[in-house]
Amino acid sequence: MEELLETREIIISSEKLGAFCGVNPAQVRKDLTFFGEFGVRGVGYNIGNLLHHIQKILATDKEWHLCIVGLGNLGHALVENDNMRKRGYNFVAAFDIDPLKIGTKLDCGLTIEPNSRISVLVPKLKIEIGVIATPPLMAQGVSNLLMSAGVRGIYNFVPVQVRTDACCVVENVDFTVKLENLAYHIGKIN
Amino acid sequence: MEELLETREIIISSEKLGAFCGVNPAQVRKDLTFFGEFGVRGVGYNIGNLLHHIQKILATDKEWHLCIVGLGNLGHALVENDNMRKRGYNFVAAFDIDPLKIGTKLDCGLTIEPNSRISVLVPKLKIEIGVIATPPLMAQGVSNLLMSAGVRGIYNFVPVQVRTDACCVVENVDFTVKLENLAYHIGKIN
Repeated sequence: MEELLETREIIISSEKLGAFCGVNPAQVRKDLTFFGEFGVRGVGYNIGNLLHHIQKILATDKEWHLCIVGLGNLGHALVENDNMRKRGYNFVAAFDIDPLKIGTKLDCGLTIEPNSRISVLVPKLKIEIGVIATPPLMAQGVSNLLMSAGVRGIYNFVPVQVRTDACCVVENVDFTVKLENLAYHIGKIN
Repeated sequence: MEELLETREIIISSEKLGAFCGVNPAQVRKDLTFFGEFGVRGVGYNIGNLLHHIQKILATDKEWHLCIVGLGNLGHALVENDNMRKRGYNFVAAFDIDPLKIGTKLDCGLTIEPNSRISVLVPKLKIEIGVIATPPLMAQGVSNLLMSAGVRGIYNFVPVQVRTDACCVVENVDFTVKLENLAYHIGKIN
């Protein structure tokens, strides 16, 4: 969507919008109507206005505070991820239990804190989302620590299901899911 | 599904299968019927038989050969990922352009090769899927190299769209997509 702003057009039709997203124009109109009346019939959508509403719907109109727990290779990759930062997802704390890592300064400027500081730093830094990249056996314990400390969402990169309270949302990432998609489609082409 | 085998039951009903997957029994029956007749009406599904068919459908009944290109933190995290290996996705080569990395032995046993060896090693090692974890500007070039060398699928962890031939499938991973889901649901709870 942000790319549309760069086109310097002010209004976009559902036809163009559909072509841009790879869906048909009727679907674009139907989907957007679900959230309210953003367009003018026969004219189109004001791009700036539409972007503003979509960002509000997706709650991407604000900056989010994240912490990472587990500074292995994956944890490092996530905490230094430019794309996440650009979209308003900012890591404001990093935790690990390894005494050799605690106190180390990361390229992004954060210093690795011990997990025992989660309960203090989550409320203090208003951390809303905890990202877990620990070994599998630690994931549930870390998840419990994060929830008690007050995070509202958990982004779990560990291939175990973590149980959470009703007031906390979880998204699990399993790298094999998309590999299975790939394998399935490659199998079909052959 | 593999967990079901460990229960030592031989037959499973669509009710139990639905409860296991978090969907309703009618959906289970409908979805499976799409691929053929696997169950016996009023009895259920033979677990071993069902697992075999699902693995065949998903093409997870075979071992896949993968290579990683780009050995930054994310590349390291992927190439050492146990979960992928357990499910039959085996990295058999690792490539980078950094002279300081080339020749380094990874924990998984592979030695980092220069990108210039992609064209030789992909056919030689029968690599079917190329995993890209390079800086954004390199993604398309690497993708072209992998396709010319003969990969059938590209698993792209770089936040740019790569263009591919018709005979090559792409799956893109964007870590911000699931973060947007989280943010949306947290916003709704508040």
